[in-house]
Amino acid sequence: MIGKLVKDRVRSGKQAINELYNTGYYGRPKDDVLELTLVEAAYLLYKNKLEITMDENNLGFGEFFTEASKRQQFFELKYIVYKDLRERGYYVQPSVTDFRVYPRGGHPGRTQAKMFVYVRSERIPMLLKDLLSQYNAAQNVRKQMVLAIVDEESDITYYEIKKENIKGNMDTSLSSEETISATMLADRVLVWDEEDSKTLYENGFFGKPLDNERLQLSLVESAYLLEKGIVEIKNGTSGDTMDIDEFSGMSASIDPDFTRKYSTYVDLRSKGFVAKTGFKFGTHFRVYNEVRSFKKLPHSEYLIHAIPQDYEFFLPVMSRAVRLANSVRKEMLYAVEYAGGIEYIDIGRIKM
Amino acid sequence: MIGKLVKDRVRSGKQAINELYNTGYYGRPKDDVLELTLVEAAYLLYKNKLEITMDENNLGFGEFFTEASKRQQFFELKYIVYKDLRERGYYVQPSVTDFRVYPRGGHPGRTQAKMFVYVRSERIPMLLKDLLSQYNAAQNVRKQMVLAIVDEESDITYYEIKKENIKGNMDTSLSSEETISATMLADRVLVWDEEDSKTLYENGFFGKPLDNERLQLSLVESAYLLEKGIVEIKNGTSGDTMDIDEFSGMSASIDPDFTRKYSTYVDLRSKGFVAKTGFKFGTHFRVYNEVRSFKKLPHSEYLIHAIPQDYEFFLPVMSRAVRLANSVRKEMLYAVEYAGGIEYIDIGRIKM
Repeated sequence: MIGKLVKDRVRSGKQAINELYNTGYYGRPKDDVLELTLVEAAYLLYKNKLEITMDENNLGFGEFFTEASKRQQFFELKYIVYKDLRERGYYVQPSVTDFRVYPRGGHPGRTQAKMFVYVRSERIPMLLKDLLSQYNAAQNVRKQMVLAIVDEESDITYYEIKKENIKGNMDTSLSSEETISATMLADRVLVWDEEDSKTLYENGFFGKPLDNERLQLSLVESAYLLEKGIVEIKNGTSGDTMDIDEFSGMSASIDPDFTRKYSTYVDLRSKGFVAKTGFKFGTHFRVYNEVRSFKKLPHSEYLIHAIPQDYEFFLPVMSRAVRLANSVRKEMLYAVEYAGGIEYIDIGRIKM
Repeated sequence: MIGKLVKDRVRSGKQAINELYNTGYYGRPKDDVLELTLVEAAYLLYKNKLEITMDENNLGFGEFFTEASKRQQFFELKYIVYKDLRERGYYVQPSVTDFRVYPRGGHPGRTQAKMFVYVRSERIPMLLKDLLSQYNAAQNVRKQMVLAIVDEESDITYYEIKKENIKGNMDTSLSSEETISATMLADRVLVWDEEDSKTLYENGFFGKPLDNERLQLSLVESAYLLEKGIVEIKNGTSGDTMDIDEFSGMSASIDPDFTRKYSTYVDLRSKGFVAKTGFKFGTHFRVYNEVRSFKKLPHSEYLIHAIPQDYEFFLPVMSRAVRLANSVRKEMLYAVEYAGGIEYIDIGRIKM
């Protein structure tokens, strides 16, 4: 069977509709013509199911591949992913986000596509808003959104993108009858009184014991407790009592991510979670659904990183974060603040 | 026992030498006086082994702690680490890099210190050259160099810093009798011929098969093979043959880290390693000591990231890299190019 390369499509006749579309769902039949994308044509050429001509000349695989990559940006990447999906037994059709993929056992004309696949090179950073617009395109037609990242070696890693409605089980009831005194020293806040330390630590898992009497609070914990009127914080240098604006301003000068981390922290607490630093995992927070015993901590469910709306994912960094989270059986979520609140974006590796 | 706070030291009398130095190796005896650093004094105050006065007034723990943190930068961090080391049973003395730590069973006056501990906050980025100057200080007196990073929650993670002389076992002998043709398409290089593909893949594990005939080479592999005269590379768009300068220039415009990655790649190959992309781990390379069978890859020993001499470690990022490497039983190395060659810096978590 012969297909003709015209611009960024390969066209073949009626026989192709029978042999390629009706049996393998390659291309789209248009009247008596089967129209194939460049990746479909390259794959069929590789499978020896199609010959391709350009200006009456037959093209070898290398010639067609080179020609196609001049005509379509990221052709090689898309080919690599298309081939992989096909070889995994999926039927694939082109889509607004590169590919529509049919569920196993399903095919075009019978079933709905199950997922949208969006192909990226590991080398090209990805804007959060691009990721979300691809996600929304998939979401609007109720498809799963899958990101296929092709590395330097043409290995593909698949990620599923989801927005998550998360909910914890922690019921923190701190009474604020008597305000607890604390002091800010450099970049941490200390509670000196033994009873106070116990109250904060055992009711909500705030802070970390400095020793058996005193408690050390992180900046976000301190701001949270200060805003709730549970603690009052003295500046260790001047001895003056600080209000929330002063404290937040100082915290933001110590930790450039403070403001973003704080909004996420407040949101997580309001949703019934306990959030603690995720430093050891390289993220802002590790998050517990519930902490009942302070002697033995439970497993934390999530690693959460608070990112701005204009965030740009460096894909090797994202890959590392997700891989690390999975290796310790946690989900990696990115928290983004919008006018309506915080959204949690789950990026998880999947096996296709 | 009473100590007097004077500037950034606490001084106590002869009795202290007997009770604090001779039994616990706190402070440094100078004539009839025991001189304690602020962290030592704070720890003794906490242990109720010392009272501290300032201008004839007794200071409570909180008062002394607040006072000390005004007098010494990062006092809280150093206190947290000092206390942790003491409670793990080590004798600790001050040093150019914060602390000298004696081996278990050893103590000042009898044994040499075993390690130098350098205390940092997770929040403050660390210049590679600072790390190396601390390393050199330790190395000069043959001590182990340990980095103690204190996170937001006052949890401490200890890392040992080492320079590594690494050596692989791969003997790659590629004959360059006939030059192999390849084409650069966008950001990857393709070898079209089946025999050529086999030669490169099976002798040195270059590239990754695109399918059963063709091979795809990464930019560093291509540059390496081009410089050795093993391949010739055509520009897929213009059809022109490229020399190494042209190819390197183009590669550097595609991958900003190309030049640094390439020097490291060449060095690793010359040392008998096989380096492949470390994308899935968020680093430049994963490195094999030896690859014998291409059907089943062995475990890769190292993750290697090529960094410039003026590199600044963001500690949460470093922490994530090391943790991820350890979770997959690999060592995390940073490769730095100097005039004399590449140095490999091993940053590994240790238990104290």
